[in-house]
Amino acid sequence: MPTQERSEATRQAILKAARAVFLEQGYQAASVAEICARADVSKGAFYHHFETKQGLFLTLMEAWLAGIDRQLQALRAESPDMGSALLRVADMAGEIFDTANDQVPMFLEFWSEARHDRAVWQALVEPYRRYEAVFTEWMKEGMAQGVIRKTDPRDAARTLVALSVGLLLQGLLDPAPSRRVETPRHALHLLMDGLREAPG
Amino acid sequence: MPTQERSEATRQAILKAARAVFLEQGYQAASVAEICARADVSKGAFYHHFETKQGLFLTLMEAWLAGIDRQLQALRAESPDMGSALLRVADMAGEIFDTANDQVPMFLEFWSEARHDRAVWQALVEPYRRYEAVFTEWMKEGMAQGVIRKTDPRDAARTLVALSVGLLLQGLLDPAPSRRVETPRHALHLLMDGLREAPG
Repeated sequence: MPTQERSEATRQAILKAARAVFLEQGYQAASVAEICARADVSKGAFYHHFETKQGLFLTLMEAWLAGIDRQLQALRAESPDMGSALLRVADMAGEIFDTANDQVPMFLEFWSEARHDRAVWQALVEPYRRYEAVFTEWMKEGMAQGVIRKTDPRDAARTLVALSVGLLLQGLLDPAPSRRVETPRHALHLLMDGLREAPG
Repeated sequence: MPTQERSEATRQAILKAARAVFLEQGYQAASVAEICARADVSKGAFYHHFETKQGLFLTLMEAWLAGIDRQLQALRAESPDMGSALLRVADMAGEIFDTANDQVPMFLEFWSEARHDRAVWQALVEPYRRYEAVFTEWMKEGMAQGVIRKTDPRDAARTLVALSVGLLLQGLLDPAPSRRVETPRHALHLLMDGLREAPG
């Protein structure tokens, strides 16, 4: 393999191993040594690609969030108006949440660490604010299109984000996979019904 | 002081000190030694009252949850029907959440620990299921009264609980105290609008 390809393969191996180790042991308990052993790479190779365990974790989290961003953008591009875009978010939620479920415990650990670590705090607040901003725009457009009723668009967006985060956490407590898909879908539809402009 | 009173005063001093230490340092970092020093009690006295740091933490969490339970029951007793009871929950939410905000980081740390500790898991799932059960009953009654529209009452209850948990977490990220009161109130009203039986 050319050097550049080998380097990328190493990076991917580290990310894959890290995902597994974080998942099994949690963020705090996971060690760089264990991740290196699992990926079959040296510590030197690890630190060539990632400055710290935290940096590696942030990379994983960003990749996950970027994937959700892409799904949201595609869904919006395909929807005729904001009302149907939001309903499709609700329909999609179950699936997103089901695949996200593995990642949530890490996210949670990270969240509790954010209190004591300024860098973690920033890394957490930034995507949170981004989703808030994205959905605030969606709400504004929906109001302009007459499909979302007139209300504070930022509060409406925050409600949607809060419900989503709450549903993700709830999924962790629920052993039944079917409910992990059906409850979020139903929950978001209930909220959408509250947000929708009453017909007539 | 008689022995029994002194014993209760010691217990309260430990609880007060623990609340402060958990808040400042987080659950994992907090040590029994530090809590004892802060409460000005011996380790012997500590272990007379609490078996472990975990037991102490559970006591604090249960006291907090019991307080919310009492508020909910009082509110329900005072409301003419379920529709207005739920709207009053929404109105109360801002205040509950504002006082809860200090406790949330601990709760969160606890949640991430639940994955690795069966006892913690049980302690967390139990109140969660209790709130779910309480609100499922509320929803059923509301449907019987014709003020909540016909839908799966358990999913409706789970939606309310999920939104509440999500709002609690969101409050942590929000530096503006006014939004910590106003956003939850607004958010829960939006959901209630989705749950309410349409007039006519």
